[in-house]
Amino acid sequence: MANAFFSDLLATISERGRTLLRGGDSAGTKRDADGLLELCDALLSGRGEASGIAIAREVLDIYRELDAAGRRAFFDGLVRDFGPDRERLSKAIEKWRAKPSDEDASSLHFASEPRRQELIRRLNRAPGGTGDLVAMRADLIGMSKGHNDFAALDRDVSHLLSSWFNRGFLVLRRIDWSTPANILEKIIRYEAVHEISDWDDLRRRIDPVDRRCYAFFHPAMVDEPLIFVEVALTETIPGAIAPLLAVDRQYLPIEKARTAVFYSISNTQRGLGGISFGSFLIKQVVEELRRETPKLDSFVTLSPVPGFMPWLRQDKDLPLSDEDREVLKRLDDPKWFESPETTAQLRAVIEPLAAHYFLKARTPKGKLIDSVARFHLGNGARLERINWLGDLSPKGLRESAGVMVNYLYRLDDIEKNHEAYANEGEVVASSAVKKLLKSEGRRLLDMRLS
Amino acid sequence: MANAFFSDLLATISERGRTLLRGGDSAGTKRDADGLLELCDALLSGRGEASGIAIAREVLDIYRELDAAGRRAFFDGLVRDFGPDRERLSKAIEKWRAKPSDEDASSLHFASEPRRQELIRRLNRAPGGTGDLVAMRADLIGMSKGHNDFAALDRDVSHLLSSWFNRGFLVLRRIDWSTPANILEKIIRYEAVHEISDWDDLRRRIDPVDRRCYAFFHPAMVDEPLIFVEVALTETIPGAIAPLLAVDRQYLPIEKARTAVFYSISNTQRGLGGISFGSFLIKQVVEELRRETPKLDSFVTLSPVPGFMPWLRQDKDLPLSDEDREVLKRLDDPKWFESPETTAQLRAVIEPLAAHYFLKARTPKGKLIDSVARFHLGNGARLERINWLGDLSPKGLRESAGVMVNYLYRLDDIEKNHEAYANEGEVVASSAVKKLLKSEGRRLLDMRLS
Amino acid sequence: MANAFFSDLLATISERGRTLLRGGDSAGTKRDADGLLELCDALLSGRGEASGIAIAREVLDIYRELDAAGRRAFFDGLVRDFGPDRERLSKAIEKWRAKPSDEDASSLHFASEPRRQELIRRLNRAPGGTGDLVAMRADLIGMSKGHNDFAALDRDVSHLLSSWFNRGFLVLRRIDWSTPANILEKIIRYEAVHEISDWDDLRRRIDPVDRRCYAFFHPAMVDEPLIFVEVALTETIPGAIAPLLAVDRQYLPIEKARTAVFYSISNTQRGLGGISFGSFLIKQVVEELRRETPKLDSFVTLSPVPGFMPWLRQDKDLPLSDEDREVLKRLDDPKWFESPETTAQLRAVIEPLAAHYFLKARTPKGKLIDSVARFHLGNGARLERINWLGDLSPKGLRESAGVMVNYLYRLDDIEKNHEAYANEGEVVASSAVKKLLKSEGRRLLDMRLS
Amino acid sequence: MANAFFSDLLATISERGRTLLRGGDSAGTKRDADGLLELCDALLSGRGEASGIAIAREVLDIYRELDAAGRRAFFDGLVRDFGPDRERLSKAIEKWRAKPSDEDASSLHFASEPRRQELIRRLNRAPGGTGDLVAMRADLIGMSKGHNDFAALDRDVSHLLSSWFNRGFLVLRRIDWSTPANILEKIIRYEAVHEISDWDDLRRRIDPVDRRCYAFFHPAMVDEPLIFVEVALTETIPGAIAPLLAVDRQYLPIEKARTAVFYSISNTQRGLGGISFGSFLIKQVVEELRRETPKLDSFVTLSPVPGFMPWLRQDKDLPLSDEDREVLKRLDDPKWFESPETTAQLRAVIEPLAAHYFLKARTPKGKLIDSVARFHLGNGARLERINWLGDLSPKGLRESAGVMVNYLYRLDDIEKNHEAYANEGEVVASSAVKKLLKSEGRRLLDMRLS
Repeated sequence: MANAFFSDLLATISERGRTLLRGGDSAGTKRDADGLLELCDALLSGRGEASGIAIAREVLDIYRELDAAGRRAFFDGLVRDFGPDRERLSKAIEKWRAKPSDEDASSLHFASEPRRQELIRRLNRAPGGTGDLVAMRADLIGMSKGHNDFAALDRDVSHLLSSWFNRGFLVLRRIDWSTPANILEKIIRYEAVHEISDWDDLRRRIDPVDRRCYAFFHPAMVDEPLIFVEVALTETIPGAIAPLLAVDRQYLPIEKARTAVFYSISNTQRGLGGISFGSFLIKQVVEELRRETPKLDSFVTLSPVPGFMPWLRQDKDLPLSDEDREVLKRLDDPKWFESPETTAQLRAVIEPLAAHYFLKARTPKGKLIDSVARFHLGNGARLERINWLGDLSPKGLRESAGVMVNYLYRLDDIEKNHEAYANEGEVVASSAVKKLLKSEGRRLLDMRLS
Repeated sequence: MANAFFSDLLATISERGRTLLRGGDSAGTKRDADGLLELCDALLSGRGEASGIAIAREVLDIYRELDAAGRRAFFDGLVRDFGPDRERLSKAIEKWRAKPSDEDASSLHFASEPRRQELIRRLNRAPGGTGDLVAMRADLIGMSKGHNDFAALDRDVSHLLSSWFNRGFLVLRRIDWSTPANILEKIIRYEAVHEISDWDDLRRRIDPVDRRCYAFFHPAMVDEPLIFVEVALTETIPGAIAPLLAVDRQYLPIEKARTAVFYSISNTQRGLGGISFGSFLIKQVVEELRRETPKLDSFVTLSPVPGFMPWLRQDKDLPLSDEDREVLKRLDDPKWFESPETTAQLRAVIEPLAAHYFLKARTPKGKLIDSVARFHLGNGARLERINWLGDLSPKGLRESAGVMVNYLYRLDDIEKNHEAYANEGEVVASSAVKKLLKSEGRRLLDMRLS
Repeated sequence: MANAFFSDLLATISERGRTLLRGGDSAGTKRDADGLLELCDALLSGRGEASGIAIAREVLDIYRELDAAGRRAFFDGLVRDFGPDRERLSKAIEKWRAKPSDEDASSLHFASEPRRQELIRRLNRAPGGTGDLVAMRADLIGMSKGHNDFAALDRDVSHLLSSWFNRGFLVLRRIDWSTPANILEKIIRYEAVHEISDWDDLRRRIDPVDRRCYAFFHPAMVDEPLIFVEVALTETIPGAIAPLLAVDRQYLPIEKARTAVFYSISNTQRGLGGISFGSFLIKQVVEELRRETPKLDSFVTLSPVPGFMPWLRQDKDLPLSDEDREVLKRLDDPKWFESPETTAQLRAVIEPLAAHYFLKARTPKGKLIDSVARFHLGNGARLERINWLGDLSPKGLRESAGVMVNYLYRLDDIEKNHEAYANEGEVVASSAVKKLLKSEGRRLLDMRLS
Repeated sequence: MANAFFSDLLATISERGRTLLRGGDSAGTKRDADGLLELCDALLSGRGEASGIAIAREVLDIYRELDAAGRRAFFDGLVRDFGPDRERLSKAIEKWRAKPSDEDASSLHFASEPRRQELIRRLNRAPGGTGDLVAMRADLIGMSKGHNDFAALDRDVSHLLSSWFNRGFLVLRRIDWSTPANILEKIIRYEAVHEISDWDDLRRRIDPVDRRCYAFFHPAMVDEPLIFVEVALTETIPGAIAPLLAVDRQYLPIEKARTAVFYSISNTQRGLGGISFGSFLIKQVVEELRRETPKLDSFVTLSPVPGFMPWLRQDKDLPLSDEDREVLKRLDDPKWFESPETTAQLRAVIEPLAAHYFLKARTPKGKLIDSVARFHLGNGARLERINWLGDLSPKGLRESAGVMVNYLYRLDDIEKNHEAYANEGEVVASSAVKKLLKSEGRRLLDMRLS
């Protein structure tokens, strides 16, 4: 209520695009990669001191006009010509080697900073610069695939972006039906887990009394949600996604809600790849919901298991009898779930397998196979339930054999769970999940005995 | 108009103080420097991953409770225990020395980063963290005076603050009589050039039609103006400050205004010392005023000359005849300016001296003596006019012998002026100022001839 | 910029729905028309003084639960039992008749005020009351058709709404792609002239650089646009609607725009029927556009002629030769416009007829036939151009024979045009339109001569 | 959170002042009362239809330029020339007298409406019109004193203002230290009960954790608080004002607060005199505080008794013994309260008198003497406590003999209390207050017996 003055600040921010300090004599600048690199040199020089914002804006504008080849040439130039000052670096090294001290290590640190870091900081001064740099990094990531030349450059860019997108600068906003359409449009476009088909579908996810959506924003990119999570408020922990998304479902009166279900979480900015917001988002939304709806006592996800089917298919070290393997073949029938008998047989095989997948199976390097599991367990959640027939969509069948899981976020246990997972690699799971594994043990034993 | 959604973001930001993710078992933490350093270790460890925001908040809270000795002990600990990982650094150095490459220089750069940099980044995640870190640096600067132990620590803190307070993240806001009182109160408190005596005095500077005030804000410290400038709109370039601040002055109808006078610019955050906003502020305010009031065609300062009297008093290499020296002694009379005769005699001596002071006198290292002059000339302004009897306040007499100067900001010349100054040390000045010097030349010549 | 504090006011308004002062012992209230009328009595009594807001809220809630019969019974009760205080009125009349004075006329005015006016004012005190009253009037209008019982009641309601929706309380807002979705949804739903098919169609009308949309809002109904106008910025005055709405059209760079075309204006609130905002909206949007885009020099509509075909079909007093009538029969072919020959023949007949329709034809009471024409000419616009083949949509063909017209708003002439129209019934038209009529004259003459 | 779009509406409102639709040929208008009345005629005529907003703006501008005599002449003209249409009124009366019907009463109502009502409605269309009309009524009230000519005019103006300032259109806003200075300045100026001496004093009333201030605003006058109330949060019901306003008092931690004390309520707009907001304000603030601080269980005023001393001094029908009268004379000593003995004696006389004053004493017309008491008791509060030595300020001594009282607002009893007061004239009081009266009875009895 009291912060209207400040709330106006951002309106101002987003009008900055209009501000154009006149540049120098850049009329003569070649609008190609070479010209661009020259302009970057100017930006780091004295000229940059005097009319830096105009030059920075021009660099970003020219970059935008370049085609893929031009952009690649520009990146090549940044790698080649904007590294550290080697002479200064050598001196710093010698000094440190002569007598190592923290003081000199610090000098060494600053001496080894590539010039492009300062360049990027100066580019950021331009109106709209932050967004342009994020877009530039998206290009860079795209071009980095397959060859390694841009690794150091990317390390510099992502180092700065990571510092600038520090959680302390992010702002949580609820997304609902009174959110501006240009934001909502991006929610539709970026939803990565359960596709949003159109505006009506979107509305069903954000407008009803028992639905919530939250996103993180950055003050310098005010119309770009960086990451968002969709939440359903329910009475009990749900085991399947379809009822949550059903067109004609009944809304739950808010006073009956006891459970908040995070059923979709999506990143939107490729250029911020590797900079993790998800953990912060989930925890803050938990806080927010507890404040708003104190009766909520259970915070869970309803998550896919995208690595499950690939793991099944590669078929190494699966704890399966031959009979089980026969049963599993029925998954090849795209309509297997329509037969109750098949379904029952598959369940008996797959549930224990899924428990094994989470609790026992690991990559050669000893990591959990499933990226979604790594994310939530790394955040301190526990594996609460394995849901048979949780997602019968084509994607759900293809990737997860229809299985979904719930990860449970209990704030009091987050730290303990996280440490068990981080230090011991232990997956904290409910007894129900563990029991599935035990029964698997029994089944295998039975098998051998018979 | 279209940005109301975004403008609400910041209101949200400033409510974040309420959010408190529960911390771990920090109930047992000792609330002294040692306990604090342990908590910092935890923040950098796995525990920090899971409940980092709560721990960060706690670190900042405990810090705030410490007395000066405790804070110093904390800084000592940061210097001692949170430097770079020396082993990793040694390896990186060896690798680079074996065969220097940009790739390895980059590794070296990241290997030499002190752990406290990451610590500071994590502290910033706490609600209100940015402001607390700025306050912490103010302490650090206070304690750095006289001894050098904290230099490397300060370099790390200021490096990060400088990156976070990048001009691209700052927001310009007009300050006027409809600005919230808690902001205005800070304007009163922080005004450093011409003291604001009370709310009525403040109102006279921001409310009339021919007065403007602008400040930069940062989205993470929304109720703290970082730097602000006070502007008077006038018909012609003024030569004295008193008429601008007079209680009973006549307001200028805005359609008659042709000149914008920047008569005061003040930094507010000691903790952001050394991170320069002033140049950006002036240039953006020029843009803003041109847009708002297109008839303005002249943008000048009305500035003190705080180094002038000290320079006069140390009396080295002054181009003065004995007669001049006699005249100068009259400055010792605090009411000298009340006598027209004395005033006339002094003027004849001081104006050429002032021109000399700007155009010729330099520090032993060849720099301009006056900090205000260095700032504006470094920004690309030119020295436009020397104003005799510009400031007859006690401070103005004591520091500047009553002299004030105008620096002129002409956007088209900024770059050129800046380069002349930066590269050649040349002070770009109007012919009027240069003529003062020439007449000085003549006077000296006359002197010798006579 | 300075008004952030005030801008927060409305956010507060729309949260008022949460406020519920506890009502009295209304637990026993019958939730039907009779109970409702009793509650209305209570609201006008002492109880209403003490807990008026709660009772008002309850009245509106119960009303909302009633079915059509219940609502009609409620209106009947308002007509029957909430008229003026007859005794007081009689006394006031006698006093006035004894010796007419303005003083007594005033007493008479207040004495003759039906009690329901005060009732409606008290209902309006409830949170959300204004919107509920507008909805209630929509019901009332629906039920008024065909019988006259509710005329006095409607006069009272509309008298108050008209006072409350005084133009001084309305706020103009631009509607664009960053407008909240719940507002945009209403734009889609309420567009009455050229239907908006979906969100993509909407976006084409409000998002491009050469499109504008503005609406009036009332502070007490903040998420309801009351009336909105869609505007296209073009180089010249357009003669057809299809190119303006084309999916794949080229956007006009804003610096080339010289003409603002009001091609659709829609009221949204049936309950505000008869309270005219359109004239104010158009004039304020003209002001707004002139300020934003000073190069605009021409403000026109592109309007349908909905009364033209009905007028043609009733075929009375049409200045037509038999030959013309033959030609007109071709309009029966729904694809007539696909034949260049037919089209040419029809044009020769219809253009003069259209000019006649506007300039000469009148209703039996001497009024212009076309409601759209009455609106714009009454606002002081002039009839600028008749556009053959302006709208080939089924509706355009059916109602207007494909003809569209431009009304021109020239601020300097508005008053003069309005007076000519209001006082003399004169339609101010361009010479081009008048020439069509003259040529008609010639044609008719030719006809007779031949 | 979701209403940012709407919150911007009001920012727009307050910028409307800039909008100026060009007027007609008003260049020739005489800028005196006669010219003004002519312009008013034009505004009601056809010209007003076409360019009404510009004319309305001009009327208000010219009015503002007039001196007192001019304004009086203008009001005279409104009384004389802008009454009802007598001919139309006569017809309506005849129709009604022939056969009274509600329909015809309604016609009569509209026929008897003075033309100035429509005039005022049209004036309100101008940007800023509402505020100007409120200011105009302040003039009118000032000129009405002593003679009655403007009564009918004032009735028309206040009728419309009352309708427009309907509680449904008012917005409650908290006033605190982050409120814009231009609003706060008005709080300082308008505080009517316990004067605010300067900005520091203001800050002590709105900034501490245990202080609140709320005001009603109207969307069309966004920078004018209409009425505001100052609230102290305390542990128990306070009996004296000085400790609440003490410069060096200790703040109460909010979790200890159980009582909200309304210690000052001030109207700000003379032009809205007679239009009551106070009752609504208090009740809504009670709601607001209960929501914000659920532990509050007691809502009381700390009020002066401004009619007490005048009533004592007129000395009619006071239930006083001669001895009592002697004691009362000590009040003439301005420092009486410094003597414990005098104080004790006075208390024994004055407390019962005060109880009598509230519970028994009445005006000749049977009304409560005290306007403050009438206000709170009429709102449904009960008289809770009489506080001896509650206000020792000169004003408190002069008006109230230092007595203050608490009125208690208990939402559940408001309606009952109001009805008892409104219907029976009964003052609902606590037993403690009644006991004072009883003891008075006893004392009187004792007196007679002795």
